[in-house]
Amino acid sequence: MTTQRRSRKEAILQVATEHFARHGFHGATLSAIAEAVGLTEPGLLYYFPSKVELLQGVLDYRDQADKSKYMAILEQDKISLFSALQDLVNVNQERPGLVQLFTVMVGESINPEHPSHDFFVQRYRALRKTMVDFFKTAAVSEGYRTDVDLEQLVVLIIAVLDGLQIQWLLDPGQVEMTTGFALFTRLVETYLEKEPSD
Amino acid sequence: MTTQRRSRKEAILQVATEHFARHGFHGATLSAIAEAVGLTEPGLLYYFPSKVELLQGVLDYRDQADKSKYMAILEQDKISLFSALQDLVNVNQERPGLVQLFTVMVGESINPEHPSHDFFVQRYRALRKTMVDFFKTAAVSEGYRTDVDLEQLVVLIIAVLDGLQIQWLLDPGQVEMTTGFALFTRLVETYLEKEPSD
Repeated sequence: MTTQRRSRKEAILQVATEHFARHGFHGATLSAIAEAVGLTEPGLLYYFPSKVELLQGVLDYRDQADKSKYMAILEQDKISLFSALQDLVNVNQERPGLVQLFTVMVGESINPEHPSHDFFVQRYRALRKTMVDFFKTAAVSEGYRTDVDLEQLVVLIIAVLDGLQIQWLLDPGQVEMTTGFALFTRLVETYLEKEPSD
Repeated sequence: MTTQRRSRKEAILQVATEHFARHGFHGATLSAIAEAVGLTEPGLLYYFPSKVELLQGVLDYRDQADKSKYMAILEQDKISLFSALQDLVNVNQERPGLVQLFTVMVGESINPEHPSHDFFVQRYRALRKTMVDFFKTAAVSEGYRTDVDLEQLVVLIIAVLDGLQIQWLLDPGQVEMTTGFALFTRLVETYLEKEPSD
């Protein structure tokens, strides 16, 4: 991909992120996104052949941006994995539009016939793999107990992130994601630091 | 409500549960449900004025049935709250159709304009309240540490249940709800049994 094409694609994704977050999937229109980025609608469709693919591009773009950000911090060993995740939850609490978009989309995509089903299956597999790899390193350097199934632990962490989003989006006045995740971190850390007893 | 009307309503809910679980919300039809229960479609609409209300009835019926079952066991003090929840997860792993219906519906209902939005807001509030009340009793009888925010703990437990369902429904070959929840129980119990340190 040429640099020009890549930067045009990135400009589209940035504008589309704003539009989807503000208007939702059904409210956002390809024509408005195209116009905001200085393209015709057929010009936009050259980069993303459909609205669903554009939305997947947006979600993937956010995932990659988050991943790059936290990988850089984690590799410099400045913070723990749980501090990075807590930071992600704090950031998400400030971007409800995007979180809502993601949560509604995941719910719909559970149906195997949904056009984004495979996208989300692959997304979760990749996310679990990245996190398991990180934990394997952390488990040694932090001296975690050795009887923990890291694959299961990662499934659980992602479950907490997703599940907190559901309750928070439904009832933001009653549910806080940030304090919920902080409690979860205490549960996990207490467990990981304890000696295996059985 | 007369006994006859109540039993008719229950018969509709049982049939509708099967139809929604097998065909999904869009695939299930009011005419087929009406026919299976020996009613005309207008006859069915007398009990549930719309398809959305029928589905809410189904989800509420499942919630109430689960609640009655576990309340009865818990009140006899035969098992702990976490054993009851583990049993619920085990049962859910055997009814993917119903779990999928619920998960897709919750995702859609996050949008404040969705006809089931308020239903789910109230459902989660009631569920949190029931569980907090139980935990308050358990906290004393089981001697849990006293510095735990039970409201947050309950938010977290429900988040884990919902989040595990998402990953399991998307990728049943790679994710197991039952082992995931068992690990979560160990995390919580380890934490609750520990003395407060700060």
